[in-house]
Amino acid sequence: MRDAITVGTINHRVVDAEYAVRGPIVARAQQLERALRDGEKLPFDKVVYCNIGNPHSLGQRPISFFRQVLAAIDCEAVAGAFAADVLERAEECKRKIKGGTGAYSESKGVESLRERVVRGITKRDGIPANIDDVYLIDGASAGCHYLMNVLIRGEQDAIMCPIPQYPLYSAALTLYGGTLTPYYLDEETGWSMDVEHVKSQLNAARAQGKNVRALVVINPGNPTGNVLSDDNLLDIAKFCADEGLLIISDEVYQENIYADGKKFKSMRKVVLEAGLDKRVALASFQSISKGYYGECGRRGGFMELIGAWEQGVLDAILKLASIALCPNLAGQIVTSMVMDPPVEGDPSYKQFAQERDDILASLKRRSITLSNALNSLEGVTCQPADGAMYCFPNLVFPQKFLDECAAANKVADAEYCTRLLLATGIVTVPGSGFGQKPGTWHFRTTFLPSEEDIAGVAVKLTNFHGEFMSQYK
Amino acid sequence: MRDAITVGTINHRVVDAEYAVRGPIVARAQQLERALRDGEKLPFDKVVYCNIGNPHSLGQRPISFFRQVLAAIDCEAVAGAFAADVLERAEECKRKIKGGTGAYSESKGVESLRERVVRGITKRDGIPANIDDVYLIDGASAGCHYLMNVLIRGEQDAIMCPIPQYPLYSAALTLYGGTLTPYYLDEETGWSMDVEHVKSQLNAARAQGKNVRALVVINPGNPTGNVLSDDNLLDIAKFCADEGLLIISDEVYQENIYADGKKFKSMRKVVLEAGLDKRVALASFQSISKGYYGECGRRGGFMELIGAWEQGVLDAILKLASIALCPNLAGQIVTSMVMDPPVEGDPSYKQFAQERDDILASLKRRSITLSNALNSLEGVTCQPADGAMYCFPNLVFPQKFLDECAAANKVADAEYCTRLLLATGIVTVPGSGFGQKPGTWHFRTTFLPSEEDIAGVAVKLTNFHGEFMSQYK
Repeated sequence: MRDAITVGTINHRVVDAEYAVRGPIVARAQQLERALRDGEKLPFDKVVYCNIGNPHSLGQRPISFFRQVLAAIDCEAVAGAFAADVLERAEECKRKIKGGTGAYSESKGVESLRERVVRGITKRDGIPANIDDVYLIDGASAGCHYLMNVLIRGEQDAIMCPIPQYPLYSAALTLYGGTLTPYYLDEETGWSMDVEHVKSQLNAARAQGKNVRALVVINPGNPTGNVLSDDNLLDIAKFCADEGLLIISDEVYQENIYADGKKFKSMRKVVLEAGLDKRVALASFQSISKGYYGECGRRGGFMELIGAWEQGVLDAILKLASIALCPNLAGQIVTSMVMDPPVEGDPSYKQFAQERDDILASLKRRSITLSNALNSLEGVTCQPADGAMYCFPNLVFPQKFLDECAAANKVADAEYCTRLLLATGIVTVPGSGFGQKPGTWHFRTTFLPSEEDIAGVAVKLTNFHGEFMSQYK
Repeated sequence: MRDAITVGTINHRVVDAEYAVRGPIVARAQQLERALRDGEKLPFDKVVYCNIGNPHSLGQRPISFFRQVLAAIDCEAVAGAFAADVLERAEECKRKIKGGTGAYSESKGVESLRERVVRGITKRDGIPANIDDVYLIDGASAGCHYLMNVLIRGEQDAIMCPIPQYPLYSAALTLYGGTLTPYYLDEETGWSMDVEHVKSQLNAARAQGKNVRALVVINPGNPTGNVLSDDNLLDIAKFCADEGLLIISDEVYQENIYADGKKFKSMRKVVLEAGLDKRVALASFQSISKGYYGECGRRGGFMELIGAWEQGVLDAILKLASIALCPNLAGQIVTSMVMDPPVEGDPSYKQFAQERDDILASLKRRSITLSNALNSLEGVTCQPADGAMYCFPNLVFPQKFLDECAAANKVADAEYCTRLLLATGIVTVPGSGFGQKPGTWHFRTTFLPSEEDIAGVAVKLTNFHGEFMSQYK
């Protein structure tokens, strides 16, 4: 047998996988950006990428301490330029990382850097962490792939995911050939999680013969921006323990909390405090791409595996990590610093704290500017962003527009986002890319454009939406 | 249905995959290293990792220019310390990389960095390259995963791989559920490739109903160190064109050539010069982990796809890259520098050229030291290493040892490597981890220990082997 290599004869799972955050609307935006650069006249003079949580691309400055340490490690010649704690951290790295940033490390990451992560987790949760549980990874995506690859044998194996969800989970499930069992977050109550509903979805999946292996929690939420309450988290943990589900807790926005009175509690702390770790296995993710640091391009983060894991399963996960050799060293180093940054009294602390606080305060202001603007639009309601980097407004479209989309075989929110792009240069992701309750429509936009730009984004959105609605009156 | 998550109920492909370069002997070595650190008395005072091409871990210094550019990009404060061309390169990166090293880039990598790679390929081959064909990746392994994921639908799909081979290919084939169709390199003629033999292996696989989709060439060879001749390369290209096979050309050792009169010719040049690009598709890999740079910990490289690709297949590959967001930016930048380094007349050129030439000359001396030592051992023959970073000696074991291994259900070369480790601290990889002709035994060792250390390695190997052989007299 001899098939030519065509889209019809390759692995259909790759063809079927969808990842809207970098999907067709983004490809269109890149074309428009090239057209602008080539001097073409368009209704806007720049493309604003609100499709992805990529803060530095929109002007956020890196945290100086992190970059100074990296520079001091890379290059002896620069040592004189830095404060004592920068040099100390760099010296520690040079001393303890065998071969430096140019050498493959152990597949789980450098031991001394994982020790720093352990210190950070311990401080965050007030419960000692264990170095053997910590796997440094090239961003949370890598950890997600390892888990899905291990858990999924075929389409009978299912993972419960929130809807709406970050489409990495759905894309990975499609790639590995598993099934996504959805549970819907409740928009009316600020995207909270109703465990009774989750249970009924689980039972329905089991009744269909699905082997449901794990439940994904994204907290703070993406795309929803909600922060789950402590009670809600405990209910989920108990539920997973009772039902024999692995908990996959995506906590990459753990430092992005804006709402007064809300704070982040890790699923790890919930599980350990409740003494559930003998009965449930937990995988948590943290990433250096988010938080106040936003070091997306470094590709770093960690995965922590605690609780009732079988050693053979841990060995299989480590084997996958070892086939990829090791996570990149600069990302590993930044991960260690994000989890164990300068503390009060360190020479760099003041500047570090100032930079961190300025970024978080500005993100909070921007989230309010944008959600207020969205809530003022006809037919649009937007839950406040407690955390993360996104607004996920609900759009009630005019029936005439829906009919038009149906007739043209177009997905209504994708069509809306495309028109928004063509009219304003603002790149967003349609709600259908994340999943949503049937009959509802949304889009996701980051609130990452700079303080000066965000007001302009709000005005453009308002003008576009006004014209759009009047067109369908 | 409700299976607990155990090694018996996870994806068996992950359990089945083997990657000897980081396998059980390396795990044992890490235990021994910890024991030494804890003050335990062993027959050696350090563990020498010759299992993996990881030059910096064994003391090779990074190329200053590359590190200076990285430092200057990361940190404004250090600018004064560097030569004009370092600053120029750093400025170009800062100007052209939107958001800098902290931002996700396009999934294929930053355009301006890919332009540098294009310039390097064009200069290397004397034939202009095209930016659309170049995908920056987190090391060649990532590119291999993309291709295998796209090509393999199930076990009926096969990829031809050399035996011995770098076990990434076999591991990836196991993970994606495909079949490895072996072709044997001919040890007696310096590990050359016999196209008639390849053809008979192809036909045998097809007769068994296999859909053979691609052929992997590793040149310079890993673990064999051979460099294929121009004629051999052309025969392979023609063969693949005639048989409708994608060529996967692993060229990560393209700058590691030591044998007089041998030089690297890219498969790209072979295909284009012969006008075969309308009839055959080619994927080539280059990595920053190898060469004279050895920047393994950075995780960088590129994949170039030329020739008869269908657009839909390219789209599927790009989608996989986009689900991983983007390769790490520091790795992307180093890749651009490796392919387009300083040139004569640049302020940094002299130092750069000196560092490069010193490393390559030293590698050549070390390869000779080690292969001479190996060839002097009883029952051992070692083809000279034309290129790459490895010796792959052939061992004729005493029958008594083979009988003992058979009785204990041990693989003979793995047992030999384990004993070598326990006696000397030298970590090698058994030939069975790469595949070998049945009835032959080998191991792979890098010749990367420093010039001072390599003589000691040779002595330890010689002493160990002498004792081993006398034990079985």
